[in-house]
Amino acid sequence: MNKLGINKLVLIGVGLIGGSLALDLKRAGRVAEVVGIDIDADNLARALERKVIDSAHTGIHAAALAAADVVLIATPVGTLPAICQSLAPLLPAHTIVSDVGSTKQLALQAFAQYLPQHYPQCVAAHPIAGSDRHGALAAQFGLFEGKKCILCPHEAQDSGSLNSVSALWQAAGADLYTLSAAEHDAIFAAVSHLPHLMAYAYVHQIGSADQRQALLHFAGSGFRDFTRIAASHPAIWADICLANRESLQDLLQQQQQQLAFLQQCLQQQDAAALRDYFQAAKAVRDEWQQGQS
Amino acid sequence: MNKLGINKLVLIGVGLIGGSLALDLKRAGRVAEVVGIDIDADNLARALERKVIDSAHTGIHAAALAAADVVLIATPVGTLPAICQSLAPLLPAHTIVSDVGSTKQLALQAFAQYLPQHYPQCVAAHPIAGSDRHGALAAQFGLFEGKKCILCPHEAQDSGSLNSVSALWQAAGADLYTLSAAEHDAIFAAVSHLPHLMAYAYVHQIGSADQRQALLHFAGSGFRDFTRIAASHPAIWADICLANRESLQDLLQQQQQQLAFLQQCLQQQDAAALRDYFQAAKAVRDEWQQGQS
Repeated sequence: MNKLGINKLVLIGVGLIGGSLALDLKRAGRVAEVVGIDIDADNLARALERKVIDSAHTGIHAAALAAADVVLIATPVGTLPAICQSLAPLLPAHTIVSDVGSTKQLALQAFAQYLPQHYPQCVAAHPIAGSDRHGALAAQFGLFEGKKCILCPHEAQDSGSLNSVSALWQAAGADLYTLSAAEHDAIFAAVSHLPHLMAYAYVHQIGSADQRQALLHFAGSGFRDFTRIAASHPAIWADICLANRESLQDLLQQQQQQLAFLQQCLQQQDAAALRDYFQAAKAVRDEWQQGQS
Repeated sequence: MNKLGINKLVLIGVGLIGGSLALDLKRAGRVAEVVGIDIDADNLARALERKVIDSAHTGIHAAALAAADVVLIATPVGTLPAICQSLAPLLPAHTIVSDVGSTKQLALQAFAQYLPQHYPQCVAAHPIAGSDRHGALAAQFGLFEGKKCILCPHEAQDSGSLNSVSALWQAAGADLYTLSAAEHDAIFAAVSHLPHLMAYAYVHQIGSADQRQALLHFAGSGFRDFTRIAASHPAIWADICLANRESLQDLLQQQQQQLAFLQQCLQQQDAAALRDYFQAAKAVRDEWQQGQS
């Protein structure tokens, strides 16, 4: 590593998250060279054009990985095990491996199983900078400025590797937090994955309606905001939901109990119960809002 | 009526919707005098200060209604029957009555039952300009500019009254649409009332969790948009949901079937089914988005 940070960063998956981090690290002078690996050649061409990466490969090859200081995996979480398996025979001994996925127990399992030699140098991270945009064209400077980034150090973590990955995200302006992978997954199942499932479920219902065209015509600003996350990338979110399926199954069941209670209030025409229920929810939402300012 | 529009507008419920319309009509020179009626004296004082209204009453009195050209009822929809009952003995013969509520079958029922003499002059309207803000302080110029406003003429509708109410909303910049009350209620149950119920249900679930504080700490932009409508006024939305309860009970049942299907995909670890489901929802959301620009 040079005094600037790292000489060679290999980015596997050149999309919104990985591409935006590469842009920030280059601008900050924290990385000398970024090698991009992606299965989509068009996406790589756009990334080269926009100088998100300096060179491009459409597969995980020895040449791409030679002398890599950090390999950052920024692909849909379901692809992580196969990518680690491909990396295993090619990784230089000193290389740090990190990811950006939304489910961290799965990431640690993949690291432990497929990269046992490098496991201490594997750092599970999750920057909270969601968007319904994706691909190298979506990469932007400053995406992580003031955003949270969660690190999930594991039982065999090498502290030097953890500090190096921390330094990258700090250079991009992120605020760092530490959680265990289990804590992380339980929290994000509730605050992110469940709302994605619900938004998809709601829009799917609207799309299945006989009067779908009329519904979409009259849908307004409430619909717009409530359904924004239903435009998220289907494959990425299928992976996330499956990786975190146990937490999500519990949460979905709880949600169905909430809806069943509302059904009952409507059936019984219980205005007071509905008002109290809405008021309790509004109080929680207002509390969250106040914590943001 | 004068050539400008109407001499005296009586606004019952001086909040976001009624107050904003009054501001626009005054600025456009379409109304000479606005009388505000509201049960909240503080709210009336703020409305007088901000010149949303010219005079204020805390109840429905003969003096307030004398020579009224239009009475606009802009209160939570559950209050409409009692307000119509109070208006009945006091309304001048020529007065047009209109409302702004989110459920139109209930409005027509209240008009027909409690204002039978005036029923032809009663115009059911619904401006689509939702917000989680409320009260006279939330009133603003231009709220309805380019927004949809739906009129639901009934079987005994006087066309002059319909045209007068249409002219008011057009003066405020709204785009007018006509639907039957039943069509209106079915559409808005799906595109507005159901998402409100779901947003309340989701936030209620988060608020009931043991780790509520950690959840709210890490909730990000997806949570923010998905839950914005859970900050809506509890009493207003309890009224709306009860007034439209039959449609909503069907829709909630359909939503529970959607969630049950997702549960099954997770249980069976069916990645392809999840991806297809999310993809279908995303296509509907993208279609809506394209229709907006």
